[in-house]
Amino acid sequence: MAVNLATPIELHPVPGIRLGTVAAGIRYPDRRDLVVIECAPGTAAAAVFTRNRACAAPVVVARAHLAQVPPRALLINTGCANAGTGAVGEDDARAACAALAGGLECTPQEVLPFSTGVIGERLPLERLTAGLPGCVAGLRESGWADAAHGIMTTDTVAKGSSRILDIAGHRVTVTGIAKGAGMIRPDMATMLAFVATDAAVAPATLQHCLQQAVAHSFNRITVDGDTSTNDACVLLASGRATLPLIAKPAGAAYAQLAAAVMEVMLELAQALIRDAEGATKFITVAVAGGASEADCLAVAYAIAHSPLVKTAFFASDPNWGRILAAVGYAPAARVEMERVAIFLNDVRVVAGGARDPDYHEARGRAVMALPEITIRVELGMGAARAVVWTSDLSHDYVRINAEYRS
Amino acid sequence: MAVNLATPIELHPVPGIRLGTVAAGIRYPDRRDLVVIECAPGTAAAAVFTRNRACAAPVVVARAHLAQVPPRALLINTGCANAGTGAVGEDDARAACAALAGGLECTPQEVLPFSTGVIGERLPLERLTAGLPGCVAGLRESGWADAAHGIMTTDTVAKGSSRILDIAGHRVTVTGIAKGAGMIRPDMATMLAFVATDAAVAPATLQHCLQQAVAHSFNRITVDGDTSTNDACVLLASGRATLPLIAKPAGAAYAQLAAAVMEVMLELAQALIRDAEGATKFITVAVAGGASEADCLAVAYAIAHSPLVKTAFFASDPNWGRILAAVGYAPAARVEMERVAIFLNDVRVVAGGARDPDYHEARGRAVMALPEITIRVELGMGAARAVVWTSDLSHDYVRINAEYRS
Repeated sequence: MAVNLATPIELHPVPGIRLGTVAAGIRYPDRRDLVVIECAPGTAAAAVFTRNRACAAPVVVARAHLAQVPPRALLINTGCANAGTGAVGEDDARAACAALAGGLECTPQEVLPFSTGVIGERLPLERLTAGLPGCVAGLRESGWADAAHGIMTTDTVAKGSSRILDIAGHRVTVTGIAKGAGMIRPDMATMLAFVATDAAVAPATLQHCLQQAVAHSFNRITVDGDTSTNDACVLLASGRATLPLIAKPAGAAYAQLAAAVMEVMLELAQALIRDAEGATKFITVAVAGGASEADCLAVAYAIAHSPLVKTAFFASDPNWGRILAAVGYAPAARVEMERVAIFLNDVRVVAGGARDPDYHEARGRAVMALPEITIRVELGMGAARAVVWTSDLSHDYVRINAEYRS
Repeated sequence: MAVNLATPIELHPVPGIRLGTVAAGIRYPDRRDLVVIECAPGTAAAAVFTRNRACAAPVVVARAHLAQVPPRALLINTGCANAGTGAVGEDDARAACAALAGGLECTPQEVLPFSTGVIGERLPLERLTAGLPGCVAGLRESGWADAAHGIMTTDTVAKGSSRILDIAGHRVTVTGIAKGAGMIRPDMATMLAFVATDAAVAPATLQHCLQQAVAHSFNRITVDGDTSTNDACVLLASGRATLPLIAKPAGAAYAQLAAAVMEVMLELAQALIRDAEGATKFITVAVAGGASEADCLAVAYAIAHSPLVKTAFFASDPNWGRILAAVGYAPAARVEMERVAIFLNDVRVVAGGARDPDYHEARGRAVMALPEITIRVELGMGAARAVVWTSDLSHDYVRINAEYRS
């Protein structure tokens, strides 16, 4: 079902970062579901987590561990989110960290736990810890593709992105993987994503780089407006490249690295939408001419969250009236309807807030038949703009979410 | 598909209010689609309209007419919303009013137009005006049931509600009809509803009565979070009852009438949810213990709008984790997760923000098998409470909205 999305062909190893993946039987048999990402000593780490107040136990523990000491390993399981489990869930997450720490000869605080899957069930600690020796034995720098499979839940395609850069004559790699196909809303890093580089980057600078990239990638996508309890995005910098330390978020080297991180995160974020639950269309909502970026985002999300717009796109129906209605009810945005123009790709369907007199439905139908469509809204109120990405609402979305227990 | 909803058996006539309905072929042949509601001279009228900026031409015209003079007639068509049609749409709406005014010997400003149906197409004026003589010839006080059918679009059941009161020894009637099954969001009177009484009520008092009733009925329901371009709710008071004029929103007579209006509107509002597009469940979301009503509403709507919660209810899956996640991301509400309890009917599934240790899934499954379910959330932050009503998200919602051009 994924829209123009294939399993990534080549994910370049990042020196200093090793990955191991096994099928531990967390929820289903014979399915890769447990991943360890080991970081070389001296690796800097930055992270953003879900803003959902009902955040899962591993999020609480990962935040606390990261505040104490740089991580030596990330421990990721699918099949069980360890969310809604209270204090006992946090104990379970800490026990999982301790078990891995034993195998890696580090402290439990140097392990960050991540979980995804069903909410409200306890972590099957016995099966999880039984899988850890296999993960550790299998650690290798070429383990990215396997790990991309290991973090999938309702995803149909493994997601990864990779770049090799030449920064001032030094070879630098940026590689990342992500998972997520539903419960996706742009109020944080809404999914799990792990990106690493071998550049040496000061922790505060790395955090800045991460937040900038997330703001314009993972925080600009929505499938269903539901913010997950478990989302996290981690950026690691192993420092094994020959490039000198990037200490501050400024200068040519930082700019080049930050651009590559942004590219990788945008490709991953868009991959989540291409593989969104039941998606048959990849929809870009581009709002321009707003009085502020916040106004543009309010309009873009009103469109991107409208079930009526999303079902019309599933039906390939150029039902621009539903888009117009969403522009009309976008909360707290400065919009004057008589200035609004709406385009489906290059076809103008609305001008001056009403049907464009030159619009012919056949042209709208031709656009709607495509798998990738841009809804462009011109507000005519200023110079601000914003872009978000979303998917359509199909029979399969309902089927998947009625059958799957997230 | 409607959940515990049947066509109303008896809609009591309201002296002074006559209704006429015909099949004018606005969009489909042989389907009642044109309704005239005639008010006796001296009838007071109150109305609320959609807050969508992209409001339809008839909303613009009805607002303007109502500001000038009390109405003598309401003119309602289905099949075409006359929305997104700009200035020409307003001309069409005024022309329709003028055509009816000719038949009723009143001024065009004494006619309020209402349209519902497809957005972005011009009103078929010729077919509409050709249907008017039949409406006028058929005007009768017993015309409520026919009119309830005449305003349906994707509704599967005609919706009406009626009460006979004894106020201080005087017989007073309150009768109403409504339509709406999708594009429903509680940001206004989200649908078309026409309610009438034969009590004599001063216009300002009638408007107060209407707004109070709407706030706790039509403004507390949501199907898909989409606010329509055409919504309106009208309350008429013909003054033909023997009860003396109710001049102010106070006193026993006002209280009794207002309670009946509220009851009728709540029954109509809940009927919209019972007949929501694709609905298989009638869901009450009751949030209590909030620091403010706004906080309770934010939590209630986060749950009621969550596609993941709604698909879980369609699947009869007691997936309380999705409800907990929605409580967690409810915007701008004061919520402390460790105080949160969640019940499915009387079964407590979450206590202290995590799975209730005494909860057994079999009990949740038993509740979820029912067609009417209350999700009760206790926030433990204060004494405020709020209730909203919604439906589940089913295969049929997608089918209806993919096939139907609204």
